[in-house]
Amino acid sequence: MKSEIIAVGSEMLTPFRQDTNSLYLTEKLNEIGVTVAFKTIVGDRRKDLVGAIRTALARVDILLLMGGLGPTEDDLTREAAAEALSIHLRRDANQVAALHARAATWRIAMPQNNLKQADVLDGATLLQNPHGSAPGQWLDTTFESYRKLVALLPGPPHECKPLFDTEVMPRLRDVVPPRAIATRTLKAAMIPESQADKLIAPIYTAYADVATTLLAHCGDLQIMLVCSKSSLTAAQERVDELAERLEEALDDFLYSSQGDTLEQIVLYYLGLRQATLAVAESCTGGLIAERITSVPGASRAFLGGAVVYSDKLKTEMAGVPADLIAQHGAVSAEVAKALADGIRLRTGATLGLGVTGIAGPTGATEKRPVGLMHIAVADAQTTTAAERTFRGDRQRIREWAAQLALDLVRKRLM
Amino acid sequence: MKSEIIAVGSEMLTPFRQDTNSLYLTEKLNEIGVTVAFKTIVGDRRKDLVGAIRTALARVDILLLMGGLGPTEDDLTREAAAEALSIHLRRDANQVAALHARAATWRIAMPQNNLKQADVLDGATLLQNPHGSAPGQWLDTTFESYRKLVALLPGPPHECKPLFDTEVMPRLRDVVPPRAIATRTLKAAMIPESQADKLIAPIYTAYADVATTLLAHCGDLQIMLVCSKSSLTAAQERVDELAERLEEALDDFLYSSQGDTLEQIVLYYLGLRQATLAVAESCTGGLIAERITSVPGASRAFLGGAVVYSDKLKTEMAGVPADLIAQHGAVSAEVAKALADGIRLRTGATLGLGVTGIAGPTGATEKRPVGLMHIAVADAQTTTAAERTFRGDRQRIREWAAQLALDLVRKRLM
Repeated sequence: MKSEIIAVGSEMLTPFRQDTNSLYLTEKLNEIGVTVAFKTIVGDRRKDLVGAIRTALARVDILLLMGGLGPTEDDLTREAAAEALSIHLRRDANQVAALHARAATWRIAMPQNNLKQADVLDGATLLQNPHGSAPGQWLDTTFESYRKLVALLPGPPHECKPLFDTEVMPRLRDVVPPRAIATRTLKAAMIPESQADKLIAPIYTAYADVATTLLAHCGDLQIMLVCSKSSLTAAQERVDELAERLEEALDDFLYSSQGDTLEQIVLYYLGLRQATLAVAESCTGGLIAERITSVPGASRAFLGGAVVYSDKLKTEMAGVPADLIAQHGAVSAEVAKALADGIRLRTGATLGLGVTGIAGPTGATEKRPVGLMHIAVADAQTTTAAERTFRGDRQRIREWAAQLALDLVRKRLM
Repeated sequence: MKSEIIAVGSEMLTPFRQDTNSLYLTEKLNEIGVTVAFKTIVGDRRKDLVGAIRTALARVDILLLMGGLGPTEDDLTREAAAEALSIHLRRDANQVAALHARAATWRIAMPQNNLKQADVLDGATLLQNPHGSAPGQWLDTTFESYRKLVALLPGPPHECKPLFDTEVMPRLRDVVPPRAIATRTLKAAMIPESQADKLIAPIYTAYADVATTLLAHCGDLQIMLVCSKSSLTAAQERVDELAERLEEALDDFLYSSQGDTLEQIVLYYLGLRQATLAVAESCTGGLIAERITSVPGASRAFLGGAVVYSDKLKTEMAGVPADLIAQHGAVSAEVAKALADGIRLRTGATLGLGVTGIAGPTGATEKRPVGLMHIAVADAQTTTAAERTFRGDRQRIREWAAQLALDLVRKRLM
């Protein structure tokens, strides 16, 4: 069955704000085998909204409308849906009482406008919203003699998502023919998207029944596999079979076949080896530490580290000899190694990571372009350094560097 | 004039990927007084795409189509636009030659499919795309006897945006009646959105000709003002007048009236006072350092710092006495102050910042809930600490804490 999601609200037609609820709703719809064929964003203008709803009803079976259920004059979704479907709104007495009770709890006088929120599409079921004053609505109806399922949901994510889960999903499950969906997410590091696709496209294109999506960002590649079958076993088998072949093709680039983040994997391997890590970051400025500590429980294997932005701090906090910096420059393999060794010794960690480079836009010299990175990993036996030059703006260069650094730690632990 | 943006691509109807180009295009369209009335996302199905294009042509004056211009079978935007507009595609000889030349440069045989990219809507102008092989198209035509402006743009952001700027914007400026748009972005820290709106709504609602949008995230509030008039002076005057009244109302919460980030403002004040900063972060794990160093030139005032995740590192790298930790616990005002003092002394910075807290989901005790934060700022004279308990998940708690920490530094410098 095909669905459309309409997000209602003029603020989502500004450069500043975007609908994000639809990603969540799409995931849930896909789980029961419902495709999202269209997404529409429309402002708080009644004529536009009526038109958008009619267009949607003409092209899909399931319509989810988000937003425009509040008490203000701009909240027009109820009125527009009634007009588009040519049905009446009735004011629900129980809901009026509930609104009065809610206002009494908050000890506020209820503006007359608020009663709009008790207006119900004729034939619709009210969906009680424990997180806000506007209830949702569910309507199983016909439009131009076809059966249509319509849900009205509040716009705020913390209201929309739970209401969809508890009230709309069970109703959809009752109507949508059962499909079983299996998914897998593979993750690979530091392989260019084009190289990865060249490697794996010949494999995944042979699995026409598995939808494969690649998503690349600064050295991090996600490969999402989704398969829908009438039985879960059959779907899971196809996904697992494809995943296994992709894993083989991606070889060392692959770091997870279960959707984990690279920092989770690094922490996992540290735990496995009963090892600890400390970092000394110059140009990444705390980004690596931030990524690692974003994982709950990181403290078990991550000791911490130093953000050594100035040369003086490289010496004082990570023990890099001042004359080494003078001799080779702060952005050099030698200093990266000294940072890794130094932070390891200072903190007593099993592994030390050192990063130095030029994130730009300034700071380049004739020999050292913007994007140049030296990254070193040290343990008690060996200290190795890698050199790479990344392209992009300051933000992207820093993200690439953090990704490479974490990947080098992963490889050392493997 | 009203416009619609259609993003073409089945990948944008998955839970994994979202159209983001449209935010950029919206900003540019708004600059010349063109409203975005609808945004539509449609997959790579010809029938769906033809329908979406017809719907758009019936309801707006300007239609921007993004994506589906590549060489594969899934790339159907040219064909669908031709069908929707009932016009022919012609194969452009110059473009065919250009595609052959491009393939020769890359020393690859050109698949027959690639020639699709030389197909041009009858009457359209090809827009040369220096960043990819698919050119854009510009069509000034009629649909059901109304004038319509249609642009076909490639989907990848690094192709779409420059092509829009260099080829589409000048053509739109020639057609769209001139409007002057003035904008301002005010930024405030650590004021709840509801409290801010209560304070400023009575002011901005009196300026019906200025569109005011509030956007709040973890203690950071943006207030965007946009005003469109026939003269820039008139638009600017209204925006500036409103901005001034809002600044007054927001008082100390306001940190920028020009859209700067909080970390930029902190660095600006540090520069003004010829002061330097160093940080010792526990639960924020490098997030504060990362935010500061994301600003180009941060090294002039930011020395660096320590990520002291373990108690041992708090002592070794920030000089917090071990018995102080034993006496008060790692998450305490005393340890926050010792972190701020210690990192200041170790680094020789003018100001030291110390953060300790419980980001969760584990680590809470009876007296210390998840979300508890102690944040201290030290200079040569005084060390002060603030205590707050934030709600939300680990990520949100860390972001709130980093925001409060930067705001405390800002206030100390003011």
